[in-house]
Amino acid sequence: MIVVLKPKTRPDAIETFVSQLEAKGFKIHLSRGEETTILGLIGDTSRLREESFLTNDAVERVMRVTSPYKLAGRAFHPDNTVIRAGNAVLGKEQGNAPLTVIAGPCSVESEEQIIAVALAVKAAGAKILRGGAWKPRTSPYSFQGLGSEGITLLLAAKKASGLPVITELLSINQIDLFADIDIIQIGARNMQNYDLLKEVGLSGKPVLLKRGLSSTVKELLMSVEYILAAGNPRVILCERGIRTFDPYTRNTLDLSVIPWLQKETHLPIVVDPSHACGMSWMVPPLTKAAVAAGADGIMVEVHNNPAAALCDGEQSLTPAAFAELMRQLAGYAKLEGRTL
Amino acid sequence: MIVVLKPKTRPDAIETFVSQLEAKGFKIHLSRGEETTILGLIGDTSRLREESFLTNDAVERVMRVTSPYKLAGRAFHPDNTVIRAGNAVLGKEQGNAPLTVIAGPCSVESEEQIIAVALAVKAAGAKILRGGAWKPRTSPYSFQGLGSEGITLLLAAKKASGLPVITELLSINQIDLFADIDIIQIGARNMQNYDLLKEVGLSGKPVLLKRGLSSTVKELLMSVEYILAAGNPRVILCERGIRTFDPYTRNTLDLSVIPWLQKETHLPIVVDPSHACGMSWMVPPLTKAAVAAGADGIMVEVHNNPAAALCDGEQSLTPAAFAELMRQLAGYAKLEGRTL
Amino acid sequence: MIVVLKPKTRPDAIETFVSQLEAKGFKIHLSRGEETTILGLIGDTSRLREESFLTNDAVERVMRVTSPYKLAGRAFHPDNTVIRAGNAVLGKEQGNAPLTVIAGPCSVESEEQIIAVALAVKAAGAKILRGGAWKPRTSPYSFQGLGSEGITLLLAAKKASGLPVITELLSINQIDLFADIDIIQIGARNMQNYDLLKEVGLSGKPVLLKRGLSSTVKELLMSVEYILAAGNPRVILCERGIRTFDPYTRNTLDLSVIPWLQKETHLPIVVDPSHACGMSWMVPPLTKAAVAAGADGIMVEVHNNPAAALCDGEQSLTPAAFAELMRQLAGYAKLEGRTL
Amino acid sequence: MIVVLKPKTRPDAIETFVSQLEAKGFKIHLSRGEETTILGLIGDTSRLREESFLTNDAVERVMRVTSPYKLAGRAFHPDNTVIRAGNAVLGKEQGNAPLTVIAGPCSVESEEQIIAVALAVKAAGAKILRGGAWKPRTSPYSFQGLGSEGITLLLAAKKASGLPVITELLSINQIDLFADIDIIQIGARNMQNYDLLKEVGLSGKPVLLKRGLSSTVKELLMSVEYILAAGNPRVILCERGIRTFDPYTRNTLDLSVIPWLQKETHLPIVVDPSHACGMSWMVPPLTKAAVAAGADGIMVEVHNNPAAALCDGEQSLTPAAFAELMRQLAGYAKLEGRTL
Repeated sequence: MIVVLKPKTRPDAIETFVSQLEAKGFKIHLSRGEETTILGLIGDTSRLREESFLTNDAVERVMRVTSPYKLAGRAFHPDNTVIRAGNAVLGKEQGNAPLTVIAGPCSVESEEQIIAVALAVKAAGAKILRGGAWKPRTSPYSFQGLGSEGITLLLAAKKASGLPVITELLSINQIDLFADIDIIQIGARNMQNYDLLKEVGLSGKPVLLKRGLSSTVKELLMSVEYILAAGNPRVILCERGIRTFDPYTRNTLDLSVIPWLQKETHLPIVVDPSHACGMSWMVPPLTKAAVAAGADGIMVEVHNNPAAALCDGEQSLTPAAFAELMRQLAGYAKLEGRTL
Repeated sequence: MIVVLKPKTRPDAIETFVSQLEAKGFKIHLSRGEETTILGLIGDTSRLREESFLTNDAVERVMRVTSPYKLAGRAFHPDNTVIRAGNAVLGKEQGNAPLTVIAGPCSVESEEQIIAVALAVKAAGAKILRGGAWKPRTSPYSFQGLGSEGITLLLAAKKASGLPVITELLSINQIDLFADIDIIQIGARNMQNYDLLKEVGLSGKPVLLKRGLSSTVKELLMSVEYILAAGNPRVILCERGIRTFDPYTRNTLDLSVIPWLQKETHLPIVVDPSHACGMSWMVPPLTKAAVAAGADGIMVEVHNNPAAALCDGEQSLTPAAFAELMRQLAGYAKLEGRTL
Repeated sequence: MIVVLKPKTRPDAIETFVSQLEAKGFKIHLSRGEETTILGLIGDTSRLREESFLTNDAVERVMRVTSPYKLAGRAFHPDNTVIRAGNAVLGKEQGNAPLTVIAGPCSVESEEQIIAVALAVKAAGAKILRGGAWKPRTSPYSFQGLGSEGITLLLAAKKASGLPVITELLSINQIDLFADIDIIQIGARNMQNYDLLKEVGLSGKPVLLKRGLSSTVKELLMSVEYILAAGNPRVILCERGIRTFDPYTRNTLDLSVIPWLQKETHLPIVVDPSHACGMSWMVPPLTKAAVAAGADGIMVEVHNNPAAALCDGEQSLTPAAFAELMRQLAGYAKLEGRTL
Repeated sequence: MIVVLKPKTRPDAIETFVSQLEAKGFKIHLSRGEETTILGLIGDTSRLREESFLTNDAVERVMRVTSPYKLAGRAFHPDNTVIRAGNAVLGKEQGNAPLTVIAGPCSVESEEQIIAVALAVKAAGAKILRGGAWKPRTSPYSFQGLGSEGITLLLAAKKASGLPVITELLSINQIDLFADIDIIQIGARNMQNYDLLKEVGLSGKPVLLKRGLSSTVKELLMSVEYILAAGNPRVILCERGIRTFDPYTRNTLDLSVIPWLQKETHLPIVVDPSHACGMSWMVPPLTKAAVAAGADGIMVEVHNNPAAALCDGEQSLTPAAFAELMRQLAGYAKLEGRTL
């Protein structure tokens, strides 16, 4: 952490400030220029906030030099983290660079529906089945999901298809029902629900953490840090669009996160174009773009009857459209050195 | 709900669509123009999403006519809701228009601190004491609050000062500790934590709900609807700044919400300038502006030693600065016909 | 245009309003429901603003049905517009789907520099040379470009390489100097500089119009409409990133515009990843993503010595890195059925 | 400017870098810590961009210490700038703190209209008359203003009322027509039209510069710098709302700019609530809030017949509503120590 003092700060004010910082356990490297005095703090600054220095009248500016996400960052963990769930693999390792497709309906609606979709997406090449049991909905009057019954049906589809399954956890009270779920999803609205992050940090299960719709990528990595610091190293990141001023898509899919996160962190990155754009016809070009930008995985909504879906039907592909998309993805995966 | 069909939609497609809607329990008012056919849906459309119609190829555009927040809206509840907590009142009623000031530290740090601040802000005219026990922090390494010990100390300050108290609830697991807390705060990060909203909806206590930092005012009212629909009519709204592209303030305080919400809803509105701007010197002008724009209450951070605060010290007023602000507010309150 | 009246609007108020609208030349289709009365306006509504109806107390909501960009929209112009400049082609037509790469330095700095870059990018497969003569800079103290000398040098590079050239027009006073320039660029800051749009609308030359950094895609098409309405049909659209809350990239590249614009308009679409992300190492993955999402062209910054560039060096590729990117793009172009 | 080098940068790389910077005329203050080496650049860094250092592989981070707006900043110009136009004064000086209200229609429509409004707003206490001659409109099909005829009519209203007048300049070609206009307005869309900024910098007339709808406050001050650097010290700043994710108001009025700009710059600050919110009923509370936050002036739209206005009628006050607002403002001005 580098702290720039205001020009003309009196020497005794500098001394007092340095003593205070040393009392908090930091070594101070003092650099006196002609106009400006700079303090370098050496020690564990990850628990400091830059803004908190500004209560001191002598402080002009503060700049963090080392990243505040020690566990999520690549600096101390240069190798990619690879996460396995059933037969599915997420993350690039020596000799194996999978492109892992997660597919399924927004909500589990019935046994017939979820099993039919599971078999269809498996046949087309998906490696993980998705399906929501509890749905966070803006309106209390909208369909809220089947709840624990949804979990039961999803597990039936897991058995029928052999695919590992992912579903969203909304409340720490539900976690006991997740014993046989392969990957726990934390949704965008809960990216900073620290209570829930700590809980899944203790679960030991792979966690797919979605970027909040107005969260910076640095905040995403700080939320990851909660899970890692609780002892769970198996975190998958997911970009699903951010909120901007233009409503022509539901959210703005931000594909630049892929190269940025790959440089900054060792964790695998999945893109969810369905929730980002909110329109099924836009999903194929955005999926191809995500693969071309280097994503480790893709999460796509597939429904056997989108027009009758209880939730988000307008963004779901039919099984046939999904199969066609998978055929097209093969070429892009190959160019990226990925195995679909 | 009004649904505009695409030009040249075939009559049989229209008939099928109308039948489907009627089967869902809506009466349909069909209006055939020369080019465009319009359907008016009559019935309870609050559980419908506009977007879900777009899976039907015949649909061009959809427009909601009635508001989706029936309980929070003024249409069916024209009179202001007035909320009492201890001796404090929030909301304007016949013959009484209070301007209610909530003040206190970001975090409860010690018994001495919270009692000293409580007495100081009471002496200056505050009607409610705030103080955080659990703090949602971006970094897992930052001070997370004293937890249940914080609640105990806050209740000691309540007893010492006679002020009702407000503190933030982060997890449904903590709610039993809130028995003697007067107002439950739901923070901006949890505005769409529906699990928590339902829980406080069952609690029967006054709830102060902060607008999420990237939530629209309509989403705020939909989150209110969760609490009201669970049976708790005592909700206070709080504007605390939104996320925009300009980082010169921590968040952008959006004072236009005050007149807009007063037109749209019957619930009292509080403004929190401290969290919005993040700089104590900016709090006084923004507080005066919030009062001039018509706020029912103000929530301000006050700390007896901001430079040593464990959390957000840079945005806290000293007790002396707070007392000076209260003196200034008196004039503005009078112009607005409010009693400070 | 559909205008929904407030419930309980008095019949005489409706009659007066209908008469006013008829006096403005619209035919009115009146639909009286049990609760709601709806007016459908038939006629040329492209000059109406939805908001202007709200001065009438009887109006509840207004919805535009037909698009306000008649010339830019696909509705009345279903076939793609194809634009030729020298030997370069932008836009997909029967039997020919080029992927057109525009490359060159941010600023023209010297004859040696611009000719060297021109020959290098041509050898690697670029079809159009870019280079700025006047640079819009946030600070008046930054390098502002060589001005008319820059145009002279760019034309020398055109002659030396045989490539058509594109450069930005900042002021209507400069247009006489653009006689031999092949494509006029209108920058993001000037997307709503209507004075400039009308001028290039009269020029008859191909115009590349960049989306403003906080402009919606609909506003982009309205700005296009200025150029088309002035009689110039040769407009190329360019996405170069939008301003959002997250500063990790300079701007957020919004690739969803590609499928959306291709559905909505007949004009070719180019993506500029260099300005969007502002970091050269991020340009290759974003370029591949833009091609995979269906872009008609790519605009990339290339500088023979980025570290010494007078402008935006941090986002420029070296000629070697550009050649490597072009090699990689070949595969993606083929998958998209494009000729690089 | 402070440049932090990457840990483990080799000594020879540091030396080379220091030599390069010295060659550009900077004195370098080198501070070698155990892990981190820091360079302090002494000299005129206002023409440097932070990002441009990142092309050097040895650079980790860059931080500007001195502000890049030397002329607009308070550091070298501690006293307020006070601007006079006719009898109107903008800016606070020893013994005189005016609250200056600018009022008038969005567009000049006819001689009768502009003179009637001029006399009405003068009677209510406005000190400056506004009225648009050329209107920047999103659609080429919307009313574009009366043009030079609008200037003639505005000058007639100036003569009839004795009020100084302000109107928007859209193009450098129009400036000769502004000889008798008292204040030139540069609109939000043109805040970074540097061509226009340089032109008004040469004009010597007072300039009211509106913040761009997605411009940071620092960018606003950099645009001011263009005008000041061209030799014109008479600049008035204007906040008129910024673009955010929430469309419930046309733009989000950002009142925090008032205290921030007053700390950072010596120039007077005006707030335009009419354009920000876009709804006339919201103008009075926002105007009062702007005064309470410390604005030097207010710009409000007033039209004698809003329902028939050719432009932006929905945001215009009637003369009666404006007079009522002025009566209310008197109290707020008094509390702020301002003369209305």
